[in-house]
Amino acid sequence: MKKSFDALNNALPHVQQLQPYVPGEQPQGEGWVKLNTNENPYPPSPKVAAAVSVEVEKLRLYPEPVSGKLRQAIGERYGMTARNVIIGNGSDNLLDLITRCYVSDPGAGHTVPSYSLYPVVCGMSGQQLIDLPFDRSMQLNTEALAATGAKVFFLTNPNAPTGVAFTRAEIEAVLQVIDGLLVVDEAYVDFGGETAIPLLRDYENLIVVRTFSKSYSLAGMRVGYALASDAIIAMLDRVRDAYNLDRIAQAAALAAFEDVAYFEAQRQKVIATREATREQLDALGWFTYPSATNFLFTEPANADGESGERVARELFDFLKERRILVRYFPNHPLTCAFIRVSIGTDAQMQAFTEGIQSWLNNA
Amino acid sequence: MKKSFDALNNALPHVQQLQPYVPGEQPQGEGWVKLNTNENPYPPSPKVAAAVSVEVEKLRLYPEPVSGKLRQAIGERYGMTARNVIIGNGSDNLLDLITRCYVSDPGAGHTVPSYSLYPVVCGMSGQQLIDLPFDRSMQLNTEALAATGAKVFFLTNPNAPTGVAFTRAEIEAVLQVIDGLLVVDEAYVDFGGETAIPLLRDYENLIVVRTFSKSYSLAGMRVGYALASDAIIAMLDRVRDAYNLDRIAQAAALAAFEDVAYFEAQRQKVIATREATREQLDALGWFTYPSATNFLFTEPANADGESGERVARELFDFLKERRILVRYFPNHPLTCAFIRVSIGTDAQMQAFTEGIQSWLNNA
Repeated sequence: MKKSFDALNNALPHVQQLQPYVPGEQPQGEGWVKLNTNENPYPPSPKVAAAVSVEVEKLRLYPEPVSGKLRQAIGERYGMTARNVIIGNGSDNLLDLITRCYVSDPGAGHTVPSYSLYPVVCGMSGQQLIDLPFDRSMQLNTEALAATGAKVFFLTNPNAPTGVAFTRAEIEAVLQVIDGLLVVDEAYVDFGGETAIPLLRDYENLIVVRTFSKSYSLAGMRVGYALASDAIIAMLDRVRDAYNLDRIAQAAALAAFEDVAYFEAQRQKVIATREATREQLDALGWFTYPSATNFLFTEPANADGESGERVARELFDFLKERRILVRYFPNHPLTCAFIRVSIGTDAQMQAFTEGIQSWLNNA
Repeated sequence: MKKSFDALNNALPHVQQLQPYVPGEQPQGEGWVKLNTNENPYPPSPKVAAAVSVEVEKLRLYPEPVSGKLRQAIGERYGMTARNVIIGNGSDNLLDLITRCYVSDPGAGHTVPSYSLYPVVCGMSGQQLIDLPFDRSMQLNTEALAATGAKVFFLTNPNAPTGVAFTRAEIEAVLQVIDGLLVVDEAYVDFGGETAIPLLRDYENLIVVRTFSKSYSLAGMRVGYALASDAIIAMLDRVRDAYNLDRIAQAAALAAFEDVAYFEAQRQKVIATREATREQLDALGWFTYPSATNFLFTEPANADGESGERVARELFDFLKERRILVRYFPNHPLTCAFIRVSIGTDAQMQAFTEGIQSWLNNA
């Protein structure tokens, strides 16, 4: 070695402290019933494949830099214009842009528990994250939220990992009292939540973030969007990579977005399967939060009627041994007695509920 | 409006100052001879379309988060391991990650002229950019470079917009004297430059950045990669979006990378066309920098033997009126008398040289 370089200690101080985000497990190999990362069990619209084929022929050319057609279509659908829309390489990209633009001391806020990416995104910019603890009711405390003084507050609605939705009136109450920006992350809204989009007319301190990953079955494609005032969108564009979306992603998302009939049908199937699964969990006597999402957050009880961390982990392990993968969040008192199960096909959910029966019978 | 929000003045101070990157013009409509953004005139390997079709079937599922197969293939090709490779959503994404990890006071360095994205990327992180001015020779001044004290120095090699290549010995001389990191941006290296990759064995203060946009004909797909010590790669991964590359981009890049025969054939065609075009410019008596890239940077002289800013702009406009689009950089004394022409097909270059002849005859 002729010249050494201390990669850790030469990094910016906040980067030295960073813990990378740990994505949900992506098991290799066949035969898994994969219900751990809230993917849609149905493929995207068949029009996506057709749109992709057209773009493949043009890959030697740079993409259109601002994803203009997608901005236009989304803006129109929600009664706004392309100037109220920005497209991200996944909604994660947009959360990062918002942080880079608007988060400074005392930091960004989030509820605890919520999406585990918020701390990562804040950390990447060297900003503090302010916790707003939930209690077991998982209800929103508007005054406590405002009292955080957060420059930007990230609120997942419907919430994750609980599935609980807040009403538009609750969101409006927050917008009235906060000083900073409210980012409503509506990743799951299409499965039953009430959107905050109509509030954009009256509240410039609102950004609504959405994704094509869940309800449009495009998790593998990385496309998200945000809706806000044209002035906010213009600022976010300043910190956006000039070509943040490739040709294929732009075309795939547009095709999926425009196939409204297909979207609607898949969405209703997921909701129906969720409700059927929920009834089965209710029949077991388990506590499950009301879900407006494509997952259920449920508190398993074993054959002896016991629940808690040990029981939840035991069920998680039992299912995993049988190649049924759900999600377990051991790191918080409000989550460690629960498992989160994504809504799959009816057949996948049957495998899940049969797995639970085996576990109960095995005890 | 029930609640207003000052989108500009609530942004971080450095974001308020930002000027967004202006990408090269992407003309709409038919019939353009597009020689302005250094795209490859040939399509990517036919194996790309096949790989894309396979992935389209899996879009409902999240991508593999680290682009592991691509890291593996690239690491092996260059005698390293997957741990020495990171994949970006375009090399622009990697320049941003490097900045977010390693640039602090007094800032990052770059040559002037060079790639106009470096100031944008630095600005996005609120960092200063230190200019190292070239003179007309476009040669590297090692001592002056070291004297900038830059935490990270971005060096495009072969350089842009000139096309001039620096030797590996020149790069090594820089590595020996600088205190910070040297980022060698090898976007164009496959068209004739000498790569710095072998220097990674001995110099931990080196990062080599590359892209699939030019020599692999995948500008529309946004894939770049960086090679460095495993310790540096691990730090860059900390600030990377967890799913920064979609399924299709990973598969397309891997298919293109593995089709070595196709890559080699297209590369040689571009080089041959460049040399033929260069001979025609030489025959006109124009000064053209030696190019190790897929473009030529040439100083037009009109029928009266005059050159300079007015002449270059006149030719640029003349060609554009005839739907032949090249690039003109008016903002610097060393570039304003030149035009940059990307190497297209032989037919496109014939249109270009015929356009020049018309301009000369029209005078």
